[in-house]
Amino acid sequence: MLRFSRSSDALQSSAVRELMKAASNPDMISFSGGMPNPGLFPVQELDEIISALPLRAKQDGFQYGPTPGYPPLLESLSAYLRSKGLPVDDNGLIITAGSLQAIHLVTKVFIDPGDTVVTETPCFVGAIPVFRYFQAALRGVPLDSDGPMLRDLKQTLEEEKPTLLYLTPYFHNPAGIVYSAERKASVMNLVKGRDIPLLEDDAYGELYFDEKDKPLTVPMKVSADPSIPICYTGSFSKIFGPGMRLGWLLGPKDVTARCELAKQGVDACSSTYTQVLADAFLRGGYLPAYLERLRKAYARRCQIMTEALKALMPEGVKWNAPKGGFYLWLQLPEGMNATALLEIAAARGAVFVVGRAFDPEGQKDDCLRLSFSHTPEERIAEGVRILAESMAVLSGKSSR
Amino acid sequence: MLRFSRSSDALQSSAVRELMKAASNPDMISFSGGMPNPGLFPVQELDEIISALPLRAKQDGFQYGPTPGYPPLLESLSAYLRSKGLPVDDNGLIITAGSLQAIHLVTKVFIDPGDTVVTETPCFVGAIPVFRYFQAALRGVPLDSDGPMLRDLKQTLEEEKPTLLYLTPYFHNPAGIVYSAERKASVMNLVKGRDIPLLEDDAYGELYFDEKDKPLTVPMKVSADPSIPICYTGSFSKIFGPGMRLGWLLGPKDVTARCELAKQGVDACSSTYTQVLADAFLRGGYLPAYLERLRKAYARRCQIMTEALKALMPEGVKWNAPKGGFYLWLQLPEGMNATALLEIAAARGAVFVVGRAFDPEGQKDDCLRLSFSHTPEERIAEGVRILAESMAVLSGKSSR
Repeated sequence: MLRFSRSSDALQSSAVRELMKAASNPDMISFSGGMPNPGLFPVQELDEIISALPLRAKQDGFQYGPTPGYPPLLESLSAYLRSKGLPVDDNGLIITAGSLQAIHLVTKVFIDPGDTVVTETPCFVGAIPVFRYFQAALRGVPLDSDGPMLRDLKQTLEEEKPTLLYLTPYFHNPAGIVYSAERKASVMNLVKGRDIPLLEDDAYGELYFDEKDKPLTVPMKVSADPSIPICYTGSFSKIFGPGMRLGWLLGPKDVTARCELAKQGVDACSSTYTQVLADAFLRGGYLPAYLERLRKAYARRCQIMTEALKALMPEGVKWNAPKGGFYLWLQLPEGMNATALLEIAAARGAVFVVGRAFDPEGQKDDCLRLSFSHTPEERIAEGVRILAESMAVLSGKSSR
Repeated sequence: MLRFSRSSDALQSSAVRELMKAASNPDMISFSGGMPNPGLFPVQELDEIISALPLRAKQDGFQYGPTPGYPPLLESLSAYLRSKGLPVDDNGLIITAGSLQAIHLVTKVFIDPGDTVVTETPCFVGAIPVFRYFQAALRGVPLDSDGPMLRDLKQTLEEEKPTLLYLTPYFHNPAGIVYSAERKASVMNLVKGRDIPLLEDDAYGELYFDEKDKPLTVPMKVSADPSIPICYTGSFSKIFGPGMRLGWLLGPKDVTARCELAKQGVDACSSTYTQVLADAFLRGGYLPAYLERLRKAYARRCQIMTEALKALMPEGVKWNAPKGGFYLWLQLPEGMNATALLEIAAARGAVFVVGRAFDPEGQKDDCLRLSFSHTPEERIAEGVRILAESMAVLSGKSSR
């Protein structure tokens, strides 16, 4: 009999795989996957990029690269981050396999088994298996429409003495909110002086729907007191393509130095080939126009879904009005359970992700996430109709 | 003051980064990097592949993929592995970010801090930071020209009761040897019945120089008693390009299931884009002709280096006669130290990797690794001459 490690016994199946499966069934209307719509990928831009690549760049793409990243990409990415006001020169920067790996490396260098990570409730579902990988204890702080609830955050920081604070302030997955400027300032005030590293996950910040909301997406890392150790992560997944598996970590140099050592024990370097492509995408100036296209497309999808919800949802169901990103967060009526609802809806041809998947403590199941990023536009209303019918069936059952 | 995790204090700088740096200085004759020569990459083949990719494959490449791998690549890779006689259907297969990540995942699911991993001495330098990542204790078993020395292996297995045995039998990095068929059989006999997982790392097996030596590259996994839990890893790095960051793990299904869960906490999936390319490379039938080209090229480079060594090395220096792969392993004369030699040689314009980097216990430094894979052919003899001169300088110093 093989004896597995105790730490691998703590690994849990995340909801991720099931999500992907449901989303890949073409007959199913899927509001579950947090993936971009394939029709929106910059396929033509990439064709142009590849046909113009010099031989040297092609050869570079085949080769190993330095662990912190392909030097030309580190340079072009630095320019991009500087343009957002980020303190690139006073921090270290490393390229990772998606921002998920940046979260992994930061967790590796801070967390010993049993240490506490404070997250939001709800929390990005992909980060939970990372924290479990290192046998962290998880505590969630509830969100309102402006960010984490301050009294809860303060109390949790004081009582739990966490080793890491993980926040996703910009078009939150799954809550769909963006932190207000005031809330960000209050969060930084609460964190200051505690020597708790703040992992600021910014995967969706570029995807605001309206230019007037752009100021909301200014990272805390831009204005934070440098004494607050902010590890800022970002990703090419939403602004180029997740299949490139490229993200980054901008953080204090002693943190990124350790993350670089850790990365040598994970994969040595990220794909040089996709780094060459991402570098050409940035240098070629493709990003601004591509972002314009994405913002319009996702805003339109969000509007279609919101209108269908207004027309079809029964009384007692609540949802937010996203200013960007991929997600609507639906609060079910008193007593209705998301997992029970999913069972009925899936049988009728529509799926979503139940709230419990996003609860770091695995309990709350009175909400659900609807993603409008991936479903074909013309099927969004139909999917919402199936959801409404399923709610009616579930209410009928429970009232019988 | 930030408090880092105890486990990150155990991270050590591997030699990898320094190797890469030295190898990237164009004036230096570098025998250090274990990377393929850029002129040998299948650049033209890839141009053909990309220009023929259907839109759907391009879109797939941009998207997230399932954690175990892009399904078409799992299929084409399975066909390739089956053609090598590997028991694909009775095992699980997952795609990883290079075989390094396969080693990482297997280590994760077996090793708790303080557990022992038995490796070869010398050992693949890239695997050492992986084992340290999980705070494993390392014990090395010496190699002779046919494989691990059996008495030492037996004694180490009995005394150390290791949790994992890590072997690289095919054109060993750095020792340059290939295990004999008899030695493989003896190793399997020694391991059988102990419930120790055997991590069989096969990154170089396709790179035999002479068709008659091909039978030496048949993996242990092909003929092993299925009761021996062999985790077989391979890589696209040497047969396509390391910058693709693609490798694989073929192992018992309960192991790969846990590795898949672990991978969700590392990077969620490997690059779909490079998986699409690797799949097209296999399906397009490019591999056999490309391997022919590589085998000839590396055999010629090995011959050039061997002839230079014969002509220039002082008495007392010994080296092996590789039948494949990238490496020559040089034994220095009694009392000569590889680190002292490197200092002199580097100042004169040639670098290599000192033996100590490959000693899992960090001690032995009477050997060095010469890689013939990357240096321009016409500079190999010149580099060997610098090495010989440096030895003379060092001998002169010590005899004064």
